[in-house]
Parts: sequence; structure tokens; C-alpha cells
Amino acid sequence: MEKKRRTEIAELGEFGLIDLLTKGFDPADASTLRAAGDDAAVVMPPSGEAVLCSTDALLEGIDFDLTYFPLRHLGYKAVTVAASDILAMNALPSQLMVSLGVSSKLSVEALQELYEGIAFACREQGIDLVGGDTKASMTGLVLGLTALGHAPKEKVVSRGGAQQNDLICISGNLGAAYMGLRLLEREKRVLADVKDPEPKFAGYEYLLEKYLKPRLRKDIVEALAEEGIVPTSMIDLSDGLSSDLMQICKASKCGARIYLDRIPIARQTYALAEELNADPVVAALNGGEDHELLFTVPLALQEQVMRMGCVDVIGHITPESTGVYLVTPDGADIRLKAQGFPEKE
Amino acid sequence: MEKKRRTEIAELGEFGLIDLLTKGFDPADASTLRAAGDDAAVVMPPSGEAVLCSTDALLEGIDFDLTYFPLRHLGYKAVTVAASDILAMNALPSQLMVSLGVSSKLSVEALQELYEGIAFACREQGIDLVGGDTKASMTGLVLGLTALGHAPKEKVVSRGGAQQNDLICISGNLGAAYMGLRLLEREKRVLADVKDPEPKFAGYEYLLEKYLKPRLRKDIVEALAEEGIVPTSMIDLSDGLSSDLMQICKASKCGARIYLDRIPIARQTYALAEELNADPVVAALNGGEDHELLFTVPLALQEQVMRMGCVDVIGHITPESTGVYLVTPDGADIRLKAQGFPEKE
Repeated sequence: MEKKRRTEIAELGEFGLIDLLTKGFDPADASTLRAAGDDAAVVMPPSGEAVLCSTDALLEGIDFDLTYFPLRHLGYKAVTVAASDILAMNALPSQLMVSLGVSSKLSVEALQELYEGIAFACREQGIDLVGGDTKASMTGLVLGLTALGHAPKEKVVSRGGAQQNDLICISGNLGAAYMGLRLLEREKRVLADVKDPEPKFAGYEYLLEKYLKPRLRKDIVEALAEEGIVPTSMIDLSDGLSSDLMQICKASKCGARIYLDRIPIARQTYALAEELNADPVVAALNGGEDHELLFTVPLALQEQVMRMGCVDVIGHITPESTGVYLVTPDGADIRLKAQGFPEKE
Repeated sequence: MEKKRRTEIAELGEFGLIDLLTKGFDPADASTLRAAGDDAAVVMPPSGEAVLCSTDALLEGIDFDLTYFPLRHLGYKAVTVAASDILAMNALPSQLMVSLGVSSKLSVEALQELYEGIAFACREQGIDLVGGDTKASMTGLVLGLTALGHAPKEKVVSRGGAQQNDLICISGNLGAAYMGLRLLEREKRVLADVKDPEPKFAGYEYLLEKYLKPRLRKDIVEALAEEGIVPTSMIDLSDGLSSDLMQICKASKCGARIYLDRIPIARQTYALAEELNADPVVAALNGGEDHELLFTVPLALQEQVMRMGCVDVIGHITPESTGVYLVTPDGADIRLKAQGFPEKE
């Protein structure tokens, strides 16, 4: 293996490092009045529009394991994690701020890789990097992320607007990111003492990509706008379908029924689940980190939603008193819980 | 000492914890359309105004030491650190988001103390807590902070607008926070093996307050507005006068001359510096964490600025080619550096 050059962060200093990392990030969005290099970013939303703001933290050892998470992918994923919350309000993300806590075990070159991933995702999604903060960390890499977006007030969608009989829709498929993580953890365990480890990922590339480099579902929010559909409620699928659907039901004061055989699960998710003797439905319900969108629309829009092509209708909203249930193909009702395996009643 | 009740975070779970901590934070600012409990906060600036956004991270072991930093004070200080960057743009902070990474060594009661401090500062300053994120941390307490504010576009002040002959002004006094930290570190060292430690802080209470519970200088931005003064440049004094003045000079492409005998230093700062055999001027220049405001105004506004009463004029802006200098009472010129002790030329 080629030996990479290693520059210590101390050689550059804090200001030199920030200059190096943020070089070439030129603002492109019309709402960005002032970007990196001041005390705060300045955003001017189009007249009459509201500004949306969301924050996330990604912590080493909790959200990512640097033994198998390439820094370039981590940078890319950080943008998806942060900006996905703006999409979930039915708005497009336009700015991103990154606060970094870096341990001295990381070299300048490693941080440049992280920023290459951030830059790539930002360019791909039309997001401006408008600032942040870089400092030392005693305790592993810490990423603090703030995403901004803007939208007309009446287009902003909360979690709390789902109405009885609304259709429950999701983009993409569920459980793949979780199975990707399981695969990485297995290979790490198996190859822990091997000198030149060669992990076996063949046939599961899609799962790895869903975990390491999840795409932002900007296309869904754009497609909804094209169809003229404003969802009644929406949330980013980050904690797992079960937990996130319950958030919508709690905020909207309603119940829900979703149908197991309508939950889209990828072929590779089924295959790896079988190999690991795991339940693909549990991965879909509780795995999390899918970063797909879960939303509700009035029943009358069924045809229009189906026409979008990239969305599945998996159930409908019920009165609050009936609770939140998963219906199996044999007609059994399973009450959903925010976390953990669903219990049969 | 009374034994406090200790509830483990796991007893409440993530959602229970968030509910408990954010209870009673009701939005009050007119620009807050939607607060905690959704994917993103929604802020509607008054028509024609820009939104300002700034982020900071506070990391255990780097920014604070929990052996002597009371969690209530840490919460208070976190609000000052985050919101001070909005003031430095000549705007008033209106919203705050807090992302928390918590190690299991902290109890629910400890986190409640942290949030009491956040709540107290937010109420005192008229800031709405509008969301955030709470998760486990492997490695000590992590606070990710995002502050929002809004202001008419033409009132927003950057670092880059200082002009030749402008007056350099600061609020408050410098070096006190750093000397407060030195005092706390000394008592920690001295009392490391003592069973019931009784640290000696008498006579230095002001220094401790400046470090542990620094006040937001909202009064300065309000006083400037009352006088009808829009500074040509402004920055939050967080890294130390030397470093922060150089940021203004770099962004404004100018030089500066400041006068040592005009730099305000508190009596307690002098007293402790003498006791510790330290240089109070170095504390003022390089100590940092003062969270006072450094700004420039046109020479013609001298009388008006002096009338404000809470501001000192410490020097003036010069052409870029002349560099950034500190002038001592005996007339010697000392070239300032971004960090470290200034060298004599």
C-alpha cells in the first residue's frame, strides 16, 4: 500500500486549517448573502418565505466507526443527514454549516478527505457551505451540522398535520442501511486479527452504499412540487419506520395501519438477512438511517401519488383511539412500538 | 452533603428525556413560527430582513472541565457563546438550537441542571429554544449550539468593513475570563488529593463569573441602535483581542494601532495576575473567552461613542501596509500576532 503524506494539524494552526478546508466553496444559492469567514452566515429568504433550520451531531463511536467508514463517505453522509431534515419540511436545503471537533490522531490529509465528501455532496445537491467552526477534540471526531432552507410559509409541512383516512407513503425501500451496517460490523469482527484483511462485500454493494453514502431524496420533494402535492405531514426516516411513524401519529393525534406486504424491502436486504439469520422486516421497522421520506396525503390524491412512480403507499391514518398497527398478510394486527421488536397482541 | 437523587438516562429513553428537558420552553419571539418537536425549526423574519445563523461546539475536556464547571453555569455560558456571534453581526439573537451528546456518567438530574442554565439565559435574553437533538456520547459531554437572529440587510455588520482612521472600540474589560480559568485550574491542582476540598476564591468572584457565566453584551448592540450607530466592522471577542483584531484587519484589508494604556483591565485581573506572577496584558491580548464586542466606527462618531459610557476607544485603523501594532506607554511598537506572546521589534 502506498504510504500517504501525513501533515499534523498543529503545522497549519486553526486558521490555516479552516482556510485550507473551506477553499473553493463558493456560494451559489441566491439566498446566501454572506458565507464562511464571519461570525455568522447571512441568509436572505425570498420575500414572504420562512427559513428552516435543523441541527444534528455525528459522534465517533456512536454514529460512525472510522475503522470501516471512509472519511470521504462520512462527509457525504453528513450532508445527507443534516439536509434530509429540511426536505422533511417540504423545503429544499440551501445552506450548510459544519462544526468540527478533531482529535490529533487525524491528519490534515484525512480532514481534507472528509471535506471532499462534504464538497461533493454540497455541489451535487446545490447546497452552499456557509461556515462553521474547527477545534481540537479530546475524544474522537465530532461533527456538528446545521442545515438551512427556505420555503413559502404555506408549503412548510410539519409532523402534526396527518388527517384520518390520509394515505401513508414512503420513498425508496427500508432496512438496507441497517443491513449494510450489520455487514460492516460482521467483517470487522471476522477480520479483527487478520494482517491484510480482505472483507467480503460481493453482492451487497447496494447495502453498503445505503449505509455509507445515502442519497438525499431531494427528487421526492421536487416531484411532489411538480405534481402540486403538499403532504399533510412528513418526517425523515432516520430512527426506523416504526419510531418515525409513531412521531407523526403522536404529533397529529392519530392512529395508523400499515401493511407488512406493502413495505418495500430490497432484494439484497432479504439476501443478507437470510445469511445472517435476521428478520428483514425488523430491519425495515427498526433499523433506521434510511433517510427516505415518510409522508401522508389525502386519500383523494392516491392516483396522483402512484403516478409519481418513486413512492409506495403502505397504509392509512386511523383515529387516535385505534393505535398504530402493522397488519401481516395473514391478517394479524401487531401493535408498533417506538423502539425494539414489535409485540404480537 | 445531601445525596441527590440519580435517575439514569436509560430509564427515560431518548424521547422521554427530550420531552422532560424541553418542557416549559415556550416560544415568545414573533419570528418563531415553529419550535421544538419537528424535523426543523421555522423562522419567519420580518419582511425584508435577513436571517443570521451561527454554530459552535463545546466539548468536554477542551472547552470545559466538569470537575469545577457547574452544569447550570455551563448551560448559561453555552447560550452566551452561541448568541454572542449573532450580536457581533449587529443583530439580536432570537432562537437557539441545542444538540447534546451525553455520556452515561451524567444523570437525568445533571442534564436538568444544564437545561435550567440554558432556560435561565434564554429567558433573560429573550431567546426561544426551538429544537435540537439528544443522543449518547462515548466520550464525554458534547454541546452543539446553533443561534439564529434577524436584522435588516443594511444593518448587518461584517468583519470586513473597517476603513482607515476608524476608531477601534471595545465593550467591558479584557482578560478576566482567562484569569478566572487560571484560578479554577490552580485550585483543582492544589486540592487534587484533598478529601473535602475548600477552594479559595475570595476576592476573585468577578473573575469566576466572567469565565463561568459570561453575560451576553446585548446591551451594547441595543445602545448602538439607540445612538443610530452602525459599526463599520464588528467581531465577538472569543479568541483574545490580538487574534480577533487581526481577523478584522485581515477581512477589512487594513492595519491597526491600539494603545496598551487604553485597554481596560479589571482590578481583580491585575490582582490575580500579580499573585500568579502572570502578565495581565498577555491575559487581555491572548486570553480569550471574554465575549465582549470589538468594533470599529468612523472617526466622526467619537463623541457619540464616548457618550454611550460602556465602550472604550483603544486605537484606530491604519493602512494595510503598516501592520497591526500595540503601542506601549513608553512609545514602543509591538507587532501583534494571531496567537502567542507578542514579539518586540
